[in-house]
Amino acid sequence: MSNTIPYKIYLSENELPKAWYNLRADMKNKPAPLLNPGTLQPLTADELAPIFCEELIKQELDDTTRFIPIPQEIRDFYKMYRPSPLIRAYCLEEKLQTPAKIYYKFEGNNTSGSHKLNSAIAQAYYAKKQGLKGVTTETGAGQWGTALSMACAYLGLDCKVYMVKVSYEQKPFRREVMRTYGASVTPSPSMETNVGRKILAENPGTTGSLGCAISEAVEAAASLEGYRYVLGSVLNQVLLHQSVIGEETKAALDKYGVKPDMIIGCAGGGSNLGGLIGPFMREKLLGEADYDIVAVEPASCPSFTRGVFAYDFCDTGKVCPLAKMYTLGSGFIPAPNHAGGLRYHGMSPVLSQLYHDGYMRAVAVPQTEVFEAAEMFARVEGILPAPESSHAIKVAIDEAMRCKETGEEKTIVFGLTGTGYFDMVAYEKFHDGKMDDYIPTEEDLAKFRKTLPEM
Amino acid sequence: MSNTIPYKIYLSENELPKAWYNLRADMKNKPAPLLNPGTLQPLTADELAPIFCEELIKQELDDTTRFIPIPQEIRDFYKMYRPSPLIRAYCLEEKLQTPAKIYYKFEGNNTSGSHKLNSAIAQAYYAKKQGLKGVTTETGAGQWGTALSMACAYLGLDCKVYMVKVSYEQKPFRREVMRTYGASVTPSPSMETNVGRKILAENPGTTGSLGCAISEAVEAAASLEGYRYVLGSVLNQVLLHQSVIGEETKAALDKYGVKPDMIIGCAGGGSNLGGLIGPFMREKLLGEADYDIVAVEPASCPSFTRGVFAYDFCDTGKVCPLAKMYTLGSGFIPAPNHAGGLRYHGMSPVLSQLYHDGYMRAVAVPQTEVFEAAEMFARVEGILPAPESSHAIKVAIDEAMRCKETGEEKTIVFGLTGTGYFDMVAYEKFHDGKMDDYIPTEEDLAKFRKTLPEM
Repeated sequence: MSNTIPYKIYLSENELPKAWYNLRADMKNKPAPLLNPGTLQPLTADELAPIFCEELIKQELDDTTRFIPIPQEIRDFYKMYRPSPLIRAYCLEEKLQTPAKIYYKFEGNNTSGSHKLNSAIAQAYYAKKQGLKGVTTETGAGQWGTALSMACAYLGLDCKVYMVKVSYEQKPFRREVMRTYGASVTPSPSMETNVGRKILAENPGTTGSLGCAISEAVEAAASLEGYRYVLGSVLNQVLLHQSVIGEETKAALDKYGVKPDMIIGCAGGGSNLGGLIGPFMREKLLGEADYDIVAVEPASCPSFTRGVFAYDFCDTGKVCPLAKMYTLGSGFIPAPNHAGGLRYHGMSPVLSQLYHDGYMRAVAVPQTEVFEAAEMFARVEGILPAPESSHAIKVAIDEAMRCKETGEEKTIVFGLTGTGYFDMVAYEKFHDGKMDDYIPTEEDLAKFRKTLPEM
Repeated sequence: MSNTIPYKIYLSENELPKAWYNLRADMKNKPAPLLNPGTLQPLTADELAPIFCEELIKQELDDTTRFIPIPQEIRDFYKMYRPSPLIRAYCLEEKLQTPAKIYYKFEGNNTSGSHKLNSAIAQAYYAKKQGLKGVTTETGAGQWGTALSMACAYLGLDCKVYMVKVSYEQKPFRREVMRTYGASVTPSPSMETNVGRKILAENPGTTGSLGCAISEAVEAAASLEGYRYVLGSVLNQVLLHQSVIGEETKAALDKYGVKPDMIIGCAGGGSNLGGLIGPFMREKLLGEADYDIVAVEPASCPSFTRGVFAYDFCDTGKVCPLAKMYTLGSGFIPAPNHAGGLRYHGMSPVLSQLYHDGYMRAVAVPQTEVFEAAEMFARVEGILPAPESSHAIKVAIDEAMRCKETGEEKTIVFGLTGTGYFDMVAYEKFHDGKMDDYIPTEEDLAKFRKTLPEM
């Protein structure tokens, strides 16, 4: 291992990106606008104002400004855990005996355990700057909720989290992390909101869903004085904030003159992938370079590979705007034994448009193979990966094995979005052979597709 | 925050220490030798050979060689997560409004979640080099077991962990991390060993203890072909391996011309503190500089502050050697509601001797105050600390507040040994007000002291 490229490429704090990159500015076909769920007309900034912070609305609607400066206060917070390392997977390469060169951008070295913090601090900052008292949000397994709690604690902002009830009960540890950061955490559906009461009346005993928690958080933000709603994925603004991942990755590679052939990221709502690919997609859109850009999704929740590109609701309660995206239908329910994360029915409108226009491709992978890849990765690289991130690991390993057959010396970069410390129940299932690989049938998908709005 | 010292000082991989520092070489009064529990005579290398690896025995008994080169293979592994950052606690300083300058060496950025990995990889490496099949060990909450599992997985060595039964049952997540790394984990006491069967016969229904798990792991190593026993704290060799913490800390401070006034570390068996203080204690022993060196222990398990300096057994089953150390007696049982770690009855013989000779001091702190400090730290510095590490945080904050009163601009360095992701049950107790501050009475301590051997 006498290579001159170190195991971990750390940029200095001075090299932290000074601006977020707005991918939309370079897209010929812009993502379609969000629609008002009542009128089905494009949403205006005024209509969004009761729900979102002013500055974030501007960012959400801005599809022309290429670079948006990162406020100094946010950069100071970033310095607590960024620049994050770009790691050369020497040990994995050796284990696989592949001629491929593998790098991963590791976003798990912070207490929220994932990249979510990059957008959480930005959203909390603009809420604070607007003079708000607090923010509301939803969380499933809790990564986003944890990240937002951390950001709010830092800024002295109130944080109300609606947590999917089954996670609240079965994953008490994430809940306790959020409480440590001073957030109030409510199991959803709750009796606190109209939509929660309605869902409980219709489905007594329901254990909740992400779509339902979103509806509750949005209602709470709209009805509470001095609160707004914030969201950790899907939205354009989130991809904007997450662009620090890709900018750092590119800067670190450039330092050593490395040009990747392939960029791989897991995709649930698209926050990580959209951030990771930024500068590479920029070159691709401008015709300056080509990269093989791959989104990886679970076979049990295949929005890209088996969904439709259409306007759909972002939430189950249908109180949120409609977005044009690859979707399985807002009524989609992931398989109950799906432990591996990435269970959202839709996908970032930006990524959806890019995928639709052929700038990236997508693959769907079954759950057991993802955990096999995760375990192998953990043993050789030392990092216990989040199930979500492990989707990208799986495809990177597959490609490295293909290179072994062909002799290609491809350079592969993937996003390792986070750690799996709070996912040991899923790992336990895997160890005990209790994990299965449910893949929805065409009939299943047709049923969920019926929940799409008629337009 | 326009200070030229960055938030995180990262050394480059080239600056990773090339040798471990052997503190004993510079001690005028060497730590007393380990004794054979049968003959009460100093243990020879031959007597230790059935239990420990050959090279590690050499390191254990060597109190003259100052620097021992780190084998390249171990340095390569270290590069996966080292050099670890030295962090300037700007946010904590601002929160406290103190003139003190606070730094912490953060050892939690690896999957084992603590500094334990530094010695785990060294011990596993020497076992592998000796051609052994595997190693045995004990673990309580599981930090050491996780670290050893990771190291063994990396080297392809079998790993048998005896885990205190109450932790095995109540903390299944750490167990699953160890299984992810391919270790076999047995709840202790078990029916697999003579000492386990004996303890179970005498105390049916016992939930185990660390001292008992040690006895089982030692017996297993001695009776299995091709296995040896390894231990994560207390031993001289462990302090040797952990010296990378202190060497890196000193190198990072030197880079910015910073000379600390005070070095603070939590102390259970002494592995972290012994490693952290290395180069500072070296200067102190050689009369080149002075530092205020402070060990922090829980008030509920006060080995330094209320123990005696005497020969004692290292385990409950009394199969292990005797060490001269500060001890509460090998029959010591920590309070059942003690959630904050650091519950070993004894202390590193090296640190014990240094403490006895006046080169360092010790303070004991109550549990609730430790968690208050931990929560404040988490909110401002973003890192969720392990309860063990939080003992050092507590004393660092106390000192910073004292500086605020006096106006002193002290430079304080403390060891942040790990993260608290697997300690959320303890945090939950704290949030729910169910934590109490049991402090053993003089009568309690006198009772445990009776378990000391008569010599």
